[in-house]
Amino acid sequence: MKTYLDCLPCFVEQALRAARIATNDDRAIKQVLDEVGCMIKDTPMENTPAESGISVYGKIREITGVADPYRKIKKRHIAEAKALYPQLQKMVTAANDPLLTAIRIAIAGNVIDLGINKTFDLVADIKKILSQDFALFDYAAFKKVLNKAENVLYIGDNAGESVFDKLLIKQLKKPVKYAVRSQPIINDVTMEDALDSGLDEVAELIDSGSIAPGTILRYSSPEFLETYRRAGLVISKGQGNYEGLSDENRTIFFLLKAKCPVIAGDLGIKEGDIVLKGINL
Amino acid sequence: MKTYLDCLPCFVEQALRAARIATNDDRAIKQVLDEVGCMIKDTPMENTPAESGISVYGKIREITGVADPYRKIKKRHIAEAKALYPQLQKMVTAANDPLLTAIRIAIAGNVIDLGINKTFDLVADIKKILSQDFALFDYAAFKKVLNKAENVLYIGDNAGESVFDKLLIKQLKKPVKYAVRSQPIINDVTMEDALDSGLDEVAELIDSGSIAPGTILRYSSPEFLETYRRAGLVISKGQGNYEGLSDENRTIFFLLKAKCPVIAGDLGIKEGDIVLKGINL
Repeated sequence: MKTYLDCLPCFVEQALRAARIATNDDRAIKQVLDEVGCMIKDTPMENTPAESGISVYGKIREITGVADPYRKIKKRHIAEAKALYPQLQKMVTAANDPLLTAIRIAIAGNVIDLGINKTFDLVADIKKILSQDFALFDYAAFKKVLNKAENVLYIGDNAGESVFDKLLIKQLKKPVKYAVRSQPIINDVTMEDALDSGLDEVAELIDSGSIAPGTILRYSSPEFLETYRRAGLVISKGQGNYEGLSDENRTIFFLLKAKCPVIAGDLGIKEGDIVLKGINL
Repeated sequence: MKTYLDCLPCFVEQALRAARIATNDDRAIKQVLDEVGCMIKDTPMENTPAESGISVYGKIREITGVADPYRKIKKRHIAEAKALYPQLQKMVTAANDPLLTAIRIAIAGNVIDLGINKTFDLVADIKKILSQDFALFDYAAFKKVLNKAENVLYIGDNAGESVFDKLLIKQLKKPVKYAVRSQPIINDVTMEDALDSGLDEVAELIDSGSIAPGTILRYSSPEFLETYRRAGLVISKGQGNYEGLSDENRTIFFLLKAKCPVIAGDLGIKEGDIVLKGINL
């Protein structure tokens, strides 16, 4: 997905939000906004927004000196998701269609991106998503590709959500490689977060090589690229991975909740809609 | 009111919204965002946000060549408000406290700023505001100052809302000067809009000299400044005028609905709250 005009003010807004998490020093925050504001003119609109994320969040690291502003928040989200895990596992086991229920829960986990801090809200959102209609629903194709696949590449998105990915991975019943970001960026799942989430119990963890809040193939590690090319099924979680992969030419299934008008518009759906969408089917 | 950090991304967002109203040319819109983004670093935080509005909207004029992007929208809002006028006039006349009802309606008109286009929404908002509690309510002081005042300066805000100001001005029962912006800026009320709204039937219209989307005394005309100093009562409508006048040292009554978190925070209230607030009482 290319950068839309609406992404540009959003970069500045994201910079403010993240800089505030990194520091209380208003002068440092202003400096972040000064520099991110000026970066708009150097933003190539043909790049994906996730690529600009590298520069935006890089500026915050550089100016505030804080390498991982979201560290504590990620730990909390993982702990909250783990507390819900046994209950959600029971729901999956008891469901008529355990695979579909696990898909829904994995999408529900994607709301953690919004900065929802309370377990209560998470529970409410899971309940909603369990009965919400999909705006795009390529489930039949998904099952067909899954059945044929000898292995699966599952590209993670946010920390916390990662715990719910574990539930879905167990339902896939195939060897899974779970890809994480190469370094902390926003609240995206890293190797440390994946281990905290217990994903090593159900998947082989691999470093995608990505320092962006999304998957951009030309920035990915050779190991990731080989896995990506050979995978029988690729599952891409969340908006950032969609941004980077939506124009690629292999079969990919995107699982996400549309949390911004730009992504919703690109997918031709409404904000808040949930999606299981396959490309190049 | 000074500029808050949250105002900075908002400038870029406003620039996008207004540039899209002025033109369909995405390259021109991108150029507006490039330049407004870079203006963040030159924004003095001690200035009021309305002052930065001069540069932001000036850039849009300069790059798109459109001097008054909101012209048609303003005309429509005035026409919609005029269609409601007879019905609202009856409500005022029939009210237990016609002055307070007129104040409420004048505040309800302030929602037009949000870009609400449908008469239906306007009617819904008026109904809500007619029974909504004020978050700040200096009505007793307002009546006291009004009773003593030999004349009133009423500083207008948006076109459309201006029609509802007429209702309130009629209830003041004092000689009123109604101040308008010196040139088109966003959807703020100009001399042409005030005439369209029929305000010349109830007040003397004066040009504030302001080219900002608010009242900033050091940019105001000598005529306005004299009126401001001599007025027995000053009524300031809306957020933009509040931004410029909130730290001044004469008695002023602000009538507004808090439509952004920054203004709400500055007033110590919540977004969506309505206010009749006097300063230097």
